[in-house]
Amino acid sequence: MNREKALQIIKDKMTEHRYIHTLGVMETAISLAERYDGDPEKAEIAAIFHDYAKFRPKDEMKQIIIEQNMSKELLSHHMELWHAPVGAYLVRTEVGIEDEEVLNAIKYHTSGRTQMTLLEKIIYLADYIEPNRHFSGVEEVREMAQNNLDDAVKQAMKNTIQFLMKKNQPIFPDTFHAYNDLVMNGKKEE
Amino acid sequence: MNREKALQIIKDKMTEHRYIHTLGVMETAISLAERYDGDPEKAEIAAIFHDYAKFRPKDEMKQIIIEQNMSKELLSHHMELWHAPVGAYLVRTEVGIEDEEVLNAIKYHTSGRTQMTLLEKIIYLADYIEPNRHFSGVEEVREMAQNNLDDAVKQAMKNTIQFLMKKNQPIFPDTFHAYNDLVMNGKKEE
Repeated sequence: MNREKALQIIKDKMTEHRYIHTLGVMETAISLAERYDGDPEKAEIAAIFHDYAKFRPKDEMKQIIIEQNMSKELLSHHMELWHAPVGAYLVRTEVGIEDEEVLNAIKYHTSGRTQMTLLEKIIYLADYIEPNRHFSGVEEVREMAQNNLDDAVKQAMKNTIQFLMKKNQPIFPDTFHAYNDLVMNGKKEE
Repeated sequence: MNREKALQIIKDKMTEHRYIHTLGVMETAISLAERYDGDPEKAEIAAIFHDYAKFRPKDEMKQIIIEQNMSKELLSHHMELWHAPVGAYLVRTEVGIEDEEVLNAIKYHTSGRTQMTLLEKIIYLADYIEPNRHFSGVEEVREMAQNNLDDAVKQAMKNTIQFLMKKNQPIFPDTFHAYNDLVMNGKKEE
């Protein structure tokens, strides 16, 4: 699917603000794919569709999580996490994208997971650092993203865990496992 | 077992510094048990023996972890965690203590775990806040311990996770699950 067609599909699924964010993720993801020997076309398509389900009603998302036997843990965690796996499901069933790499990059773009693929890291990170993001710590991660993809993803995970702890929120297990995995793999490489 | 006998057993198992720490944990644990309707006698005995295995050689601890089929995850995490489950095992086999509540309080005093018992929380917290402890954040947890046991344990977990992330260390899964469990149970009670 070409960029124009893909953007056309998502544009009326989201707010203007979210559409601008999506364009930022797209450009950042392509740039990261080029820098780290990823696939810029897959990065583009995963980025465009990463927030496909962002504005679905809570009840619809909940129903899909239950009917599609997604992780039971999702429902006991913040619904902010739901649009990622639900999005991967809907992008397959409604848009017809069947590339598992692309679908997994959408599925894990909010939580991360253990043993993330290159494309999953690219989309996770692009979502975190795209130019319209402005929050404490983002600039440090942007700089790290120029030099080491894993370090940047790990720092983004740390910031997220820290942010959730400050707000007294639970941490989704996949995020915690992603952090541990990056730390342990980093140590192996040292 | 009375206090004198118990202290006699552990005294030559550890350094003077660690013995003084143990006396601090003992006094703090008894005081917490009194405050939160726990069992001061069990708190006393669990506190006295909580660091029983602290100075065992690494190889001996490793062997016990493997032979006793303890969590495989222990060996891929920092050995600082090992003395707690190994201690519970040795306190049973060498000292003859068979009280499961006491043994579990020893076993989980470093990591915590999901669904901690009152005694487990008391020993975990006493170990963290006893008067000889001096590190960033301990005073805040000491004050919380005057008012709400769960809040204090949760804050200690947050500090520990934060500390490990700063040092680029993995977080032991039990600690993460303990944090999530306390956050979620706290929300149910709100």
